[in-house]
Amino acid sequence: MFIDPWSSQQFIDYNRLRREFGIEEFNFKLPDSQKLFRRNIIFGHRGFDTVYDAIVNHQKFAVLTGLMPSGKMHFGHKMTIDQVIYYQSLGADVYIAVADLEAYATRGKSFKETLKIAEEEYFLNYIALGLKPEHSQIYFQSLRKDVTDLAFIFSKRTNISEMKGIYGFKDETSLAHVESPLVQSGDILHVQLDKYSGPIPTVVPVGIDQDPHIRLAREFTRRVSFFSVQQTDNGLGIIEKKLLEIEKQEGGYGFYLPAATYHRLMSSLDGTRKMSSSVPESYISLSEEPAEVKKKMMNAKTGGGSTIEEHRKFGGKPEECSVYEYYVYHLVDDDNYLKEVHDTCKAGTRLCGNCKKEAIEKINLFLKDLKEKREIAKEELDKYVRFN
Amino acid sequence: MFIDPWSSQQFIDYNRLRREFGIEEFNFKLPDSQKLFRRNIIFGHRGFDTVYDAIVNHQKFAVLTGLMPSGKMHFGHKMTIDQVIYYQSLGADVYIAVADLEAYATRGKSFKETLKIAEEEYFLNYIALGLKPEHSQIYFQSLRKDVTDLAFIFSKRTNISEMKGIYGFKDETSLAHVESPLVQSGDILHVQLDKYSGPIPTVVPVGIDQDPHIRLAREFTRRVSFFSVQQTDNGLGIIEKKLLEIEKQEGGYGFYLPAATYHRLMSSLDGTRKMSSSVPESYISLSEEPAEVKKKMMNAKTGGGSTIEEHRKFGGKPEECSVYEYYVYHLVDDDNYLKEVHDTCKAGTRLCGNCKKEAIEKINLFLKDLKEKREIAKEELDKYVRFN
Repeated sequence: MFIDPWSSQQFIDYNRLRREFGIEEFNFKLPDSQKLFRRNIIFGHRGFDTVYDAIVNHQKFAVLTGLMPSGKMHFGHKMTIDQVIYYQSLGADVYIAVADLEAYATRGKSFKETLKIAEEEYFLNYIALGLKPEHSQIYFQSLRKDVTDLAFIFSKRTNISEMKGIYGFKDETSLAHVESPLVQSGDILHVQLDKYSGPIPTVVPVGIDQDPHIRLAREFTRRVSFFSVQQTDNGLGIIEKKLLEIEKQEGGYGFYLPAATYHRLMSSLDGTRKMSSSVPESYISLSEEPAEVKKKMMNAKTGGGSTIEEHRKFGGKPEECSVYEYYVYHLVDDDNYLKEVHDTCKAGTRLCGNCKKEAIEKINLFLKDLKEKREIAKEELDKYVRFN
Repeated sequence: MFIDPWSSQQFIDYNRLRREFGIEEFNFKLPDSQKLFRRNIIFGHRGFDTVYDAIVNHQKFAVLTGLMPSGKMHFGHKMTIDQVIYYQSLGADVYIAVADLEAYATRGKSFKETLKIAEEEYFLNYIALGLKPEHSQIYFQSLRKDVTDLAFIFSKRTNISEMKGIYGFKDETSLAHVESPLVQSGDILHVQLDKYSGPIPTVVPVGIDQDPHIRLAREFTRRVSFFSVQQTDNGLGIIEKKLLEIEKQEGGYGFYLPAATYHRLMSSLDGTRKMSSSVPESYISLSEEPAEVKKKMMNAKTGGGSTIEEHRKFGGKPEECSVYEYYVYHLVDDDNYLKEVHDTCKAGTRLCGNCKKEAIEKINLFLKDLKEKREIAKEELDKYVRFN
């Protein structure tokens, strides 16, 4: 089993993933727990304990996420921002990285193009979805020197061989692509520099496909901290000096080892792969027109019987239904009602046609409201976006 | 034949070097020609024609050099700065890069350590040797984002394979080391961004050991310019947009293809290898104490006969003498007197002991004067050094 963060693989066997990659089961009881947590959509974690402790003890912590704008923002992306907004409600400092260096390196997107999509498509939705401006910032990899400085420091502590091993890079891989994961590690760790939040427990909510990046960032955290300990008596560099200061403040590791949580990935509407920004038929975007929502939903793969008769007789399979996923992840907050949807499907009394109509109504209502909020958000952008 | 810029190989057969690597013979007649040029110490070039045209037509051009402080500044380093100062007298914009990212990547030097050595050892000597503050700047790779931004853009246009081919990197090579040459290309090309000198013929005076970096920078120039031409109709990035503007201004290449000149490398005092900052016995530093100069010179390998009698009978071999190198490269401006030194050595009438004494006197006189000038230079540093 090999995880490639730049592919569109779909992972299903979450237990096997936990076993093989050493991801721990997520069973923390969080305050005012959000549906994504209650419903085990967040299925695993690495090192969440420090974050959990901070939450229950009302101490500072941070959440970081990144966006690589490659098309429309869709319901798959929404899931991550829902978590970010939830953490913000618990007191987290919020960092959102626009992965424009990575988009440039791996998809050939120009910085200008990325900026445009990020602003129009993503930032407005974040705000519309409820992100607050206090203690939160959206920044660009390409403009934040501290991030690329850290990446360079990490680059001294890895080699071609290791990057090939983790990501399956070949000799033909562009150096920019090889460097991208180091920039991501820079994103994750820079949060803990004094200039930002200082040393602080940090959680990065990701899909399982991003796990290689998480492991690498955690590994660099260890290497950098170890190095600063070793070099105490020599002159230390500008950033390394900073690491040393952190290390003195905190003892042990210079940085808190960054934590991650892993969520299940939403399926494409035809149920064959994961939702992908580069395949518009696979998702419903947050700016989808009502007619388009209807069309996409009506074509979606369900867990229903092949005929109405069979469905009534044998019942449906919600666990294999891409429409039911929308109910679970997004459309229904009330656990009792969700159970009713589930059970009536199983029992064969809920028919796919009606169920889809209900989903379409809920989605279109939600998107209409979101669209209005995006209009208001346009005036608010300055409070969130940093150009350094 | 393989050139490794991080080794201390000594190259002797300059004709073969020219042949195998396509370096052209340097035979431009420059105004007020400096001794390094008159004496064919500058033995070859790539693309110097654009720079020559600028010089004779009194148009703007730039000279860039870099320093990687790894010990004392010595007479080998002086040779490069002599050229820089000469170009400055002809009207060049001067850029001096402190290669602190490279020093970190290839020698594990901390940024702070590099800064200290660079300031105390190199900057003061540059000023003492005659560098003027007008149109000149000393900057740090680690602090100049435009340089590392260009490096990232280049990294998209090369791959692991190519870097292995040019530099002999292995899978065990640290990524920081792999990235260093791209940063150097960034140094060389950033000069031509509008924020600095704009598109301008640029010469980089180097020893032959630096040729791989020169070829790479020239190659990136072609690739980047080509890219900007191809992408005209798409959105372009912040820097790429800039490239495009340059391209519009100039037609053809977005940047002038950077030129290089190649100088012979001074030998170590024992004549076995090239002068090397990491081997103190191999060089005389610009802050050497008089007694130490004497000791090092008296131990130096000469081209003299094995006994005085033999020397008087068969004459000496100035072309194999590390002391004579000092006369040619540094100590004697007057070509007639240099010829006299050469001919009397050949004739056996000039004895090594006396010749060394004369060299010691000249060196110590020069260093005494330089030391005084360094004191004055301390007040001048701010006029040269940029921290961005």
